[in-house]
Amino acid sequence: MSPKPILSTLLLAASALVVPPLGAAGKEPITPIPPARVTHRAMVELGKQLFFDPRLSRSGAISCNSCHNLSMGGTDNLKTSIGHNWQQGPINSPTVLNARFNTAQFWDGRAVDLKAQAGGPIANPKEMASSHALAVDVLQSIPGYVAAFRQAFGHDRLGIDEVTQAIAAFEETLVTPNSRFDKWLKGDRKALTKVELDGYRLFKSAGCVVCHNGPAVGGNSFQKMGLVAPYLTSNPAQGRVDVTGKEEDRLHFKVPTLRNVALSYPYFHDGAAATLTEAVDTMARVQLGRQFSADENAKVVAFLKTLTGEQPRVSLPVLPPSTEKTPRPRPFEQP
Amino acid sequence: MSPKPILSTLLLAASALVVPPLGAAGKEPITPIPPARVTHRAMVELGKQLFFDPRLSRSGAISCNSCHNLSMGGTDNLKTSIGHNWQQGPINSPTVLNARFNTAQFWDGRAVDLKAQAGGPIANPKEMASSHALAVDVLQSIPGYVAAFRQAFGHDRLGIDEVTQAIAAFEETLVTPNSRFDKWLKGDRKALTKVELDGYRLFKSAGCVVCHNGPAVGGNSFQKMGLVAPYLTSNPAQGRVDVTGKEEDRLHFKVPTLRNVALSYPYFHDGAAATLTEAVDTMARVQLGRQFSADENAKVVAFLKTLTGEQPRVSLPVLPPSTEKTPRPRPFEQP
Repeated sequence: MSPKPILSTLLLAASALVVPPLGAAGKEPITPIPPARVTHRAMVELGKQLFFDPRLSRSGAISCNSCHNLSMGGTDNLKTSIGHNWQQGPINSPTVLNARFNTAQFWDGRAVDLKAQAGGPIANPKEMASSHALAVDVLQSIPGYVAAFRQAFGHDRLGIDEVTQAIAAFEETLVTPNSRFDKWLKGDRKALTKVELDGYRLFKSAGCVVCHNGPAVGGNSFQKMGLVAPYLTSNPAQGRVDVTGKEEDRLHFKVPTLRNVALSYPYFHDGAAATLTEAVDTMARVQLGRQFSADENAKVVAFLKTLTGEQPRVSLPVLPPSTEKTPRPRPFEQP
Repeated sequence: MSPKPILSTLLLAASALVVPPLGAAGKEPITPIPPARVTHRAMVELGKQLFFDPRLSRSGAISCNSCHNLSMGGTDNLKTSIGHNWQQGPINSPTVLNARFNTAQFWDGRAVDLKAQAGGPIANPKEMASSHALAVDVLQSIPGYVAAFRQAFGHDRLGIDEVTQAIAAFEETLVTPNSRFDKWLKGDRKALTKVELDGYRLFKSAGCVVCHNGPAVGGNSFQKMGLVAPYLTSNPAQGRVDVTGKEEDRLHFKVPTLRNVALSYPYFHDGAAATLTEAVDTMARVQLGRQFSADENAKVVAFLKTLTGEQPRVSLPVLPPSTEKTPRPRPFEQP
């Protein structure tokens, strides 16, 4: 299938979506973010420790939180991240907030879920540059972790499966409910200004909502970057084709969530758009074949800013100390 | 003054210190850590944001918390830290916990207080590699910060003085009261085991307490590293002489606090001692001219582990986002 028929079908679907009255419960293409439900506290607490623990990296200095900083919208606000030995990452770090709603993880969707994702950066020589075996050795040498894994899992195995499962359990809780837009969705007519509502209407009628819908306002499909006009970038990433091997998936990337998009700058897989204004302008041109006026752009941006939800309240974990048996961090040694 | 007479005088003082009955209130050379008193909440909250904000660095990736990680005893648990562009730091990062009790800051005491210290790493090209002017430009471009500074200071100036004052105000709260040792000091006879108490007695009678005393169990004097036997290291730091210019201060360093020493590994200004066992052995040899038996060493280590206090409860701040006017992070550009 070539992209053109998809576009027409989607735009048709988009115009259909505009018909229901604004804000009528259950009739909008975007749905509210449900609050986190923690059913296994010991698992989530363990996952939080691991998420903040730089000893999962070879250097002892890079943690999950380094690139998915929970103080900064679950991102590092860099074009591309800084890995072991200050290596420049190949692609923009997506937010971990609401990542549970993604259909798959990474820009090319190569990880089926959060658990599969969590193992990637630990062993990537350009990121945390450790290995699963080394990370597990480190954790097994620390009695505080051994006890926490036993409490969380009810057994004595401590392998990479348990590590990534716990990290994923913590990440499942990283949702951002009660944005102003969600309040409006739930019936609070005063939650949005007229400009913001105009922006939402335009977001729907222009076709943005075709890809950016659902609870995460995205994250649930792969689409071609540069659907109606080429997207020019020096970033060599080819997207979904690297996973499927299908030529038609070249330059297809996971549609990013727009939740908290005011916090997760810079934008796109190459981090090339520094501001929302720029990102909206580019999207309209290369995905919709449309040039927004300054007024239209400002309205859409105003709407997007209403998608910032309550950020997770995270108390910094106190990590159990290393022991004499713990493999030492090696920051200044090549992997 | 040569160090030898100091040593004799101090050791004499140390033996005098052993006389009072153990744990008698007010008669021990170590005093309990008082809990934090927050009198200016807006200032402390602002300081916490700044402490966690990597935008104070040129790369946008290094914050105060990178090297003084509040999840890890206020240190990075590395021999020497990783600075901008993965530069290797010259000296071990001391803990920020209880740093308020230090007579001065940095190993050589070149900063008179926490406020003076806080400005150092921001502008150090080997550390955060920003400049005071750039850091202030970044903060002034962010309305959330402008409002927070106004609330904290009651005026509209936002300069490096205000930045470092707020960071220092937060750091003033980073104390660790209620260690088991402090409970014992306050009269709880069951707070320590016999081995731990034996270790404390040895800590006093051997002379460790001569330099490691007061609320922070150190931090209140400069002493020569290698007082009675040379301390062999490849680290070129010369210590206090770089500040005073006095030859007699060569290799004199600030005595580090032993509070939370079980968490603040590795040890010494060069980070050369990976374990408490090794650190205690070295200290006994080069500072006291004494070889501890394995049993003696274990007792002192057991005592030292009782100095771990309640770690500060820190809720991760949510940082105000950058704007179109905010100078962009430049991680892959030399300063």
